[in-house]
Amino acid sequence: MTISDAPTDRTRLGRHHERGTHDRDELYAVLDAGSICHLGIVMNGGPAVFPTAFGRIDDTLYLHGSVAAHNLTTAGQAPDVCVTVTHLDGLVLARSVFSHSMNYRSAMVFGTPRTVTDPDEVLAGLRAVVEQTVPGQWDAARRPTRKDLAATTVLALGLDEASVKIRRGPPGDADDPDADPSVWAGVLPVRQVWGEPWADPARTAAVPLPGHLARLPGTRLDDDPETTRIPT
Amino acid sequence: MTISDAPTDRTRLGRHHERGTHDRDELYAVLDAGSICHLGIVMNGGPAVFPTAFGRIDDTLYLHGSVAAHNLTTAGQAPDVCVTVTHLDGLVLARSVFSHSMNYRSAMVFGTPRTVTDPDEVLAGLRAVVEQTVPGQWDAARRPTRKDLAATTVLALGLDEASVKIRRGPPGDADDPDADPSVWAGVLPVRQVWGEPWADPARTAAVPLPGHLARLPGTRLDDDPETTRIPT
Repeated sequence: MTISDAPTDRTRLGRHHERGTHDRDELYAVLDAGSICHLGIVMNGGPAVFPTAFGRIDDTLYLHGSVAAHNLTTAGQAPDVCVTVTHLDGLVLARSVFSHSMNYRSAMVFGTPRTVTDPDEVLAGLRAVVEQTVPGQWDAARRPTRKDLAATTVLALGLDEASVKIRRGPPGDADDPDADPSVWAGVLPVRQVWGEPWADPARTAAVPLPGHLARLPGTRLDDDPETTRIPT
Repeated sequence: MTISDAPTDRTRLGRHHERGTHDRDELYAVLDAGSICHLGIVMNGGPAVFPTAFGRIDDTLYLHGSVAAHNLTTAGQAPDVCVTVTHLDGLVLARSVFSHSMNYRSAMVFGTPRTVTDPDEVLAGLRAVVEQTVPGQWDAARRPTRKDLAATTVLALGLDEASVKIRRGPPGDADDPDADPSVWAGVLPVRQVWGEPWADPARTAAVPLPGHLARLPGTRLDDDPETTRIPT
């Protein structure tokens, strides 16, 4: 299934188009594996890029306003945003510095965000943001109060205009006649892993670590072994 | 030492200003620990955010054009870019979903990039980009040829207009009278780690792993234990 019927000027694949895809399942996979996104907005005529939390429900991304009132308020009024989610999977060390590259998965979503006003969708959007990073956390923690909600802005961004780029595999200069075969070439994998959870020292009672936190996989890449597979 | 004499509209610290700093050494530390940045540009009137490699020499960031000719050509003509480098250090799990947060270190650099034309500075900038991710790699691989250089654009961006935000530590709602003490609260650390390097299967001769790759630290956060320290 493709992301949209036809790419736009912004999602048409340019350089290294062989790394690009308009497959919707690939888009979902890259987005869902992310803990944060980078939100690009135009502020006073220039670009500004903020790291922020996000969540996804079907074909809608949700961003919430407790991270930076500043950028989201601006984004809510701006005609367009760009949300980019990137996973760095490896450093590609080639025989020449020119052929050095990175293995990565990256999604870019363009569009005009909508400020969510429906109370049910506000809650659903916030739930998606919380569950994006730690599944099970929405049910574990106290839900937003009326006061919490009054202080929170939720934005919704459709996935109609999006693109995905993925690079995997070894360096590309093995067949370069100028490549020096005495230079080590290969990939240095990079992974994002969870550490051991540590409890807030200010807590007043001993609360056991809940099951949904104890069951976390050792690495976020466990579900995508292809990106970390070591060729034999 | 502060980043500049006075913050601009873009680097003045807004919400959660207690997380911000204009300290130049903090800026260097956040930038230098990054393998990639997110480059924000204005393209056809809207924002676009691209993951890309970068390097630093003193108070200049270097970006190179082999990652995406498209964005860097645009950036070279654009009045302004924003370069953001983010390290996610932990998920901050509070007693209420509203107080959930992230521990992170993030630097934002704003400015008008300069296309580097001086041959010595082109080489120095490319060296900085390569060495940013794997120190020692510039000397290990073949230097750029005349042909390589003709296909490469190097942009330089000063660090005059920059800001840093850092959040560390436990959740902030320990003293909230509405906080439910039966909810587990604490931090789930996140780290970026190197995997075992794997050699390009297409290589024709057995080349031993060079020393600069064998000596890599197990985690990029080794040099900043404060962010991963587990309170006792």
